[in-house]
Parts: sequence; C-alpha cells; structure tokens
Amino acid sequence: MVNEFNILHPEPLLIVISGPSGVGKDTVLHMMEERGEYPFHFVVTATTRPIRKNEVDGVDYFFVSHDQFAEMIENDELFEYAIVYNDYKGNSKKQVRDALDSGKDVIMRLDIQGAATVKKEVPEAILIFLTTEDEEELVNRLKARKTETSEGLKLRIATARQELKHAKYFDYIVLNKDDALDETVDTLEAIIRAEHHRANPPKVSL
Amino acid sequence: MVNEFNILHPEPLLIVISGPSGVGKDTVLHMMEERGEYPFHFVVTATTRPIRKNEVDGVDYFFVSHDQFAEMIENDELFEYAIVYNDYKGNSKKQVRDALDSGKDVIMRLDIQGAATVKKEVPEAILIFLTTEDEEELVNRLKARKTETSEGLKLRIATARQELKHAKYFDYIVLNKDDALDETVDTLEAIIRAEHHRANPPKVSL
Repeated sequence: MVNEFNILHPEPLLIVISGPSGVGKDTVLHMMEERGEYPFHFVVTATTRPIRKNEVDGVDYFFVSHDQFAEMIENDELFEYAIVYNDYKGNSKKQVRDALDSGKDVIMRLDIQGAATVKKEVPEAILIFLTTEDEEELVNRLKARKTETSEGLKLRIATARQELKHAKYFDYIVLNKDDALDETVDTLEAIIRAEHHRANPPKVSL
Repeated sequence: MVNEFNILHPEPLLIVISGPSGVGKDTVLHMMEERGEYPFHFVVTATTRPIRKNEVDGVDYFFVSHDQFAEMIENDELFEYAIVYNDYKGNSKKQVRDALDSGKDVIMRLDIQGAATVKKEVPEAILIFLTTEDEEELVNRLKARKTETSEGLKLRIATARQELKHAKYFDYIVLNKDDALDETVDTLEAIIRAEHHRANPPKVSL
C-alpha cells in the first residue's frame, strides 16, 4: 500500500534564462549558484569573442578560436549556435544531455535567438525572459558596464527593442529591478520549484 | 519611453486547493493566511452539514439549513455545489467574482468533484492537488481527527482512492508530508508566485 499515493515524478528540468543584453542575466545566475538552494548544472557556452577582464575560461564561457568553432559545427556537436555581434556562440548538446541524464536541472543562459532555437528543438524547455522596468534602466546598465563603444551601445539598444517583441513567446517574464536582485532570484527559484510540482511533467528529451 | 519594457500583467488568480479528506487542506490554508506573504481572498463555502467543535460560522463555512441551500440553488447563486456524505456544499459565484474584481487572488478549498466543476467553468483556474506520501498516512490523519465513525472512515478511504485517479487532471501536485507543513506552504507560495509571472496570463472570467 505504501507509495500508492506518491504521484510525483521529479524529472530534471531544462531552464533557459534569456533577455536583452545588460539586463543582468549573469549577476542573477551567480546569485542562484551562491545560494545553492536549487542545485543545477549551468551550461557553459562556447564563444569566439575575446575574453573580458574578470572572465574565466571554462567558467564564464569556453573561449575558442573561429577554427575550433567551425569544427564543432561540422561535427554537429552544438545544440544551437548563433552569430552575435560578429562572434559565434553555441552550446554543446552533449553537455545538456549528460547533465539531464544525471538527474540535475540544467540552466542555459541564452540570447533570445538562441532561446527560440532551443524551444523549437526541445518544447519541454522552460523559457524565462528577464527584463528591466524600462528602456532607460537597461541603457544605464549597459553604460555602467563600460565595455561598449557608443556605436556598440546603440546597436545593443536597437537589438533589445526588437528582442522585446519575442517576450510573449516565453513561458515566464521576470522583472529584474535595479535594487531588488534578491527578489528576482526568489522569483526564479519559485518558478523552478513550481515547475517541479507539475501534475504532468513532460520528460525533456533531446 | 518609460514603461515600454514593462510587459508584466499582474492579473488576479483563481486558485483551487483540493485533495482527499484528511490530507490537511485547512491546516495548510491557515498557515498561508498566518504568513500573509501572498494576501488572498479565501472563499467561504456554504454547507448544510452540522458545525463541528472549534469551527466558526462564516469563517470555516457558512452553515446553512437545507431550505436556505435550496434557495441558493434556485437563485443560481452558486458557482458549483456538490452532495458530499449526504450534505450539501457550495460556493457563491458572486463572492469569487467580487474578490477577483478587487484585484485579489482568490483561493477555493474544494473536494475533487468541486475542483473539476470549477475547471470546466473557469479553465484559467489553477488546480493544486494536495496529497499524502501514502495511504497509510492519510488513514492515520483521519483517525487522529476522531470525527469519524469506523464506517465513515471506510467510506472516506474508498472515496480517496477513487479521487486519486483524478490527480492527473490537476495543474500541480503537492505532497503534504506529515512533518513538513512549512515545506508544503513554501511550495504553494512558489506556485502562486510563479503563476504571477506567466508571459501570457489568461484573464480569469466567470
């Protein structure tokens, strides 16, 4: 008779966190990792863009050459890839599959184009759109970063405007307010917790 | 430009908490009310069953006569009603509508039959199925209540078995473990928080 009532199926989730550049995806993910409340495998993206100050290879990104990236494409090793600001970015299918197989939730940080690709290939993926309260706040954050030229900034803002139109294709929208990082992370954790209690959780397969 | 990015639509939610008798729906709801983290309007059910010790009229239920209940049915005042163990139970449509109109989330505690009726009439309702780890635990809780005769207990257990088959029609399933009430309430609050961040929240209409 025991366990007859146990109808919970704790399947690992594939969660995609996306949103315009500058919205604070990395900061939010770092805090989630620090809190450790919901352990997850964070997918490290391969990129051909130059490493920035304070970034660590293999932690923030796998920094690879254009030749290495081309090889990954040829060998169909990539889950999806995109050309962003003239640089290549892509995520390894195998990395995602292995983490899910081990029973761990997987979180991917993707630009909106990448998120759309994943959703098409893996409809069970949970897409979370991170956004700022208004455009002004986004611009301020990009400026504070000081990694952009004036031209680069303009391009990013124009892109962000376009990208916002895709927000409605996401499953969840979370506001990342300037002074409420804790609240943002609370909401992300609530979404993950809730999704683990779905009555009919679809098994993620890729 | 301000608010251009604000694509959140905080619509009030209609949440239905259900599950077999004895699972602890009332206890869980009392704790949610005490915490006050997510204020909600709790729909007080009208019933013809006799008031129990420690129950308060208008708080636990509206205790009405069979004649009064018949009048409510005739006037189409009831959102749904059901005959449970020879007694009538029903919820006022107006009460739910008024609370939603004021912008508040509404929580209804319903037996599984009632939950199914609400979902049919209001597909936007979020159905949460509260359950115990196994049948043994449920039986123990019903026994501990000491409000049931041996016959009554048998009937409740048989009903619970039937009811469990409906769990899959719910949106969420939450385990209410014997020694982890706080955890149960955390999960319910996470579900409510997550649902408030849906990208395309359907407006509840009834």
